[in-house]
Amino acid sequence: MALSKKPVTGMKDILPEEMQIRDYVIGVIKDTYGRFGFTSIETPCVENIANLTSRQGGDNEKLIFKILKRGEKLNVEEAVSEEEVVDSGLRYDLTVPLVRYYSNNAAKLPTPFKALQMGNVWRADRPQRGRFRQFMQCDIDILGEPSNLAEIELILATTTTLGRLGFQKFQIRINDRRILKAMAAYSGFAEKDFDSVFITLDKMDKIGLPGVEKELLDNGFEKGCVEKYLALFEGLSKAGDGIAYLADALGDFLEPEVKGGLQEIITSVEAAKSADFEMVFDAALVRGMSYYTGTIFEIAIPEFGGSCGGGGRYDKMVGKFTGNDVPACGFSIGFERIIMLLMENGFQVPKKPKKVAYLIEKGVEADTLGQIIRKAQEARKDGSQVLVVRMNKNKKFQKEQLEKEGYEEFVEFYKNPLKN
Amino acid sequence: MALSKKPVTGMKDILPEEMQIRDYVIGVIKDTYGRFGFTSIETPCVENIANLTSRQGGDNEKLIFKILKRGEKLNVEEAVSEEEVVDSGLRYDLTVPLVRYYSNNAAKLPTPFKALQMGNVWRADRPQRGRFRQFMQCDIDILGEPSNLAEIELILATTTTLGRLGFQKFQIRINDRRILKAMAAYSGFAEKDFDSVFITLDKMDKIGLPGVEKELLDNGFEKGCVEKYLALFEGLSKAGDGIAYLADALGDFLEPEVKGGLQEIITSVEAAKSADFEMVFDAALVRGMSYYTGTIFEIAIPEFGGSCGGGGRYDKMVGKFTGNDVPACGFSIGFERIIMLLMENGFQVPKKPKKVAYLIEKGVEADTLGQIIRKAQEARKDGSQVLVVRMNKNKKFQKEQLEKEGYEEFVEFYKNPLKN
Repeated sequence: MALSKKPVTGMKDILPEEMQIRDYVIGVIKDTYGRFGFTSIETPCVENIANLTSRQGGDNEKLIFKILKRGEKLNVEEAVSEEEVVDSGLRYDLTVPLVRYYSNNAAKLPTPFKALQMGNVWRADRPQRGRFRQFMQCDIDILGEPSNLAEIELILATTTTLGRLGFQKFQIRINDRRILKAMAAYSGFAEKDFDSVFITLDKMDKIGLPGVEKELLDNGFEKGCVEKYLALFEGLSKAGDGIAYLADALGDFLEPEVKGGLQEIITSVEAAKSADFEMVFDAALVRGMSYYTGTIFEIAIPEFGGSCGGGGRYDKMVGKFTGNDVPACGFSIGFERIIMLLMENGFQVPKKPKKVAYLIEKGVEADTLGQIIRKAQEARKDGSQVLVVRMNKNKKFQKEQLEKEGYEEFVEFYKNPLKN
Repeated sequence: MALSKKPVTGMKDILPEEMQIRDYVIGVIKDTYGRFGFTSIETPCVENIANLTSRQGGDNEKLIFKILKRGEKLNVEEAVSEEEVVDSGLRYDLTVPLVRYYSNNAAKLPTPFKALQMGNVWRADRPQRGRFRQFMQCDIDILGEPSNLAEIELILATTTTLGRLGFQKFQIRINDRRILKAMAAYSGFAEKDFDSVFITLDKMDKIGLPGVEKELLDNGFEKGCVEKYLALFEGLSKAGDGIAYLADALGDFLEPEVKGGLQEIITSVEAAKSADFEMVFDAALVRGMSYYTGTIFEIAIPEFGGSCGGGGRYDKMVGKFTGNDVPACGFSIGFERIIMLLMENGFQVPKKPKKVAYLIEKGVEADTLGQIIRKAQEARKDGSQVLVVRMNKNKKFQKEQLEKEGYEEFVEFYKNPLKN
């Protein structure tokens, strides 16, 4: 087969200009989350296929890159099923691996365990502009903390990071899966239909309340249920305090602690926040993953249409691995979207070292070369970035190119020392 | 299938203690290489299967994790060959992806192009202690620089990094593929047998000169050739200047520029070096990969038996992708071995921020909680690491555990403010 210069379908080469921004953003993320006591961890990119197909991942499980078994010669010719030849796959998110990691290593980890995981994930999505089959995710999670302190710290850590990266006037939308369920139950939908109702509700941003109404009716739900459901959202749009309104309207359908919990999170975050954003209760916020059990939240940045990250509480996932539930809550930043927004806005990495280029004429003696490079070493020790290159015949053009790369000072060395 | 708590065979979960050291080392590497003008790049972890099986990778090509095609339902039942169901795999090194990247993006890259690539690679080796199927590689490469400046800068950048990480009294062994070939040709071995001769020579460290002699004879090589070959190594062991001795002994078998080239590299590096190491010419240094065309080098750290990294010149690989050769030279650090050595020696990450833990009694009011967290935010802004946790019933034990994690200061907050 011929060699291919292109990356595999749907994945991309990252050029130096973007890499510089990525490295900077990774540095800010690690530093900020570090101050909140999150510790970095790493899990393998490859996971057991059983863990990837355990229905934790929703639709992502349809997008797994599957890996052929190793250690013996594969007999594709004789295989009668995929299971015979596949035992692992590339992870599609960082949450399933984190929970496996915690289950495997809990005895060696503190309680609560505050984890920061940055790494690539893979999804065999149809390739499209700005969406890639390999992309970086950046998750923080707190395991073992049942109280709202987890939500508050996650939201503050994430928003402080976004603030340090220059994002302003964004929103953290918040809701609770228990409110979603109580609203559906109160309206008379059957529990088995909740997921279908939420899939429609999730489109509220795009199709509005009339669109939601139409789709629910088209999907065959009873007119009475749909009207009762919509009346709740209409009531909300007029209410000053949405949480209080719903707690009142839903009565016994809603566990009483949900109201106080959401209010505590919003109050504490508003009191302590160090970035320019607001907390917004949004009863139409769904978040796709079915593993969420309580609070859910999402970042909305005005310059960007969709969500730039989100998360929530998933108290039942560790139990699937260990048999014992452990409270868990996480927040994932949309790393690739943030990089895209920064690049589109012409973001410049601050505080670069001084960039100096040494141009050496061809034919300089070995001894002299040693001295020149020693001089470069000294300058590097003092923190400068020094590029040592051979001088081209067209020195003017070479210097112009180097200026474009950010070199601001040039030192020239000639074979004939009189020229120096 | 049941969920599995363990990582997949041969791969590992990285615990916070090791992660802290890894993050620190990555920071030192990026900072040091940056001062030499190397720019970070990233290539996808997945490569086209044709690129991974083009005989650039030697034995590593037998260890590829192969990935099933995506985008259509796979019919393993009907497939009659592996090629039908596999179109990509996980990269086994960073050099093949780098050369593909350069071939794909050369028009957008400076000349010479100095690349730093850090990333995971995968090899389906038999699992064994200290050797994993997923591991980090850390490569610097210079493309487009035909002169020895490339070798000098690569060796200085790598040794400066090792020095900053505290390594001392190590060696950079250096040789040239052209010396290896000239010695074999001079001794009368046929060119088709060179690779076999070098595989034996590569064992010199372990089996010594008599062992090399025995294996060459066992492999059926002529006694006359073997004796002439060994005589060269015996002569070398007595010679003061090995390079001059060989240039003299090999005569026309060796291109004249090789001698001056190696001497220039050694002289310049010795003159400019900023770490505690020595350059050693080693005519028995082979380096496995057949793609090397000139200089080859390797790091030998006394505390560690084998090599801790290496590299060399490979001027013919870009041409395999583009049809036009581009001079290229690279140096790879054995990242995992370095981390292992640092951990074994009880390495401590320097300059940590102050670690403070806030313990909050259960039942503190939402308003108070907001104020406490605001206080934590202020301390974080000043650079401290602040952990906010609920106070346990057994506060003494909780504080002991936190002290083990490095928390040095505790602030306690009670429901009854009189207690504060």
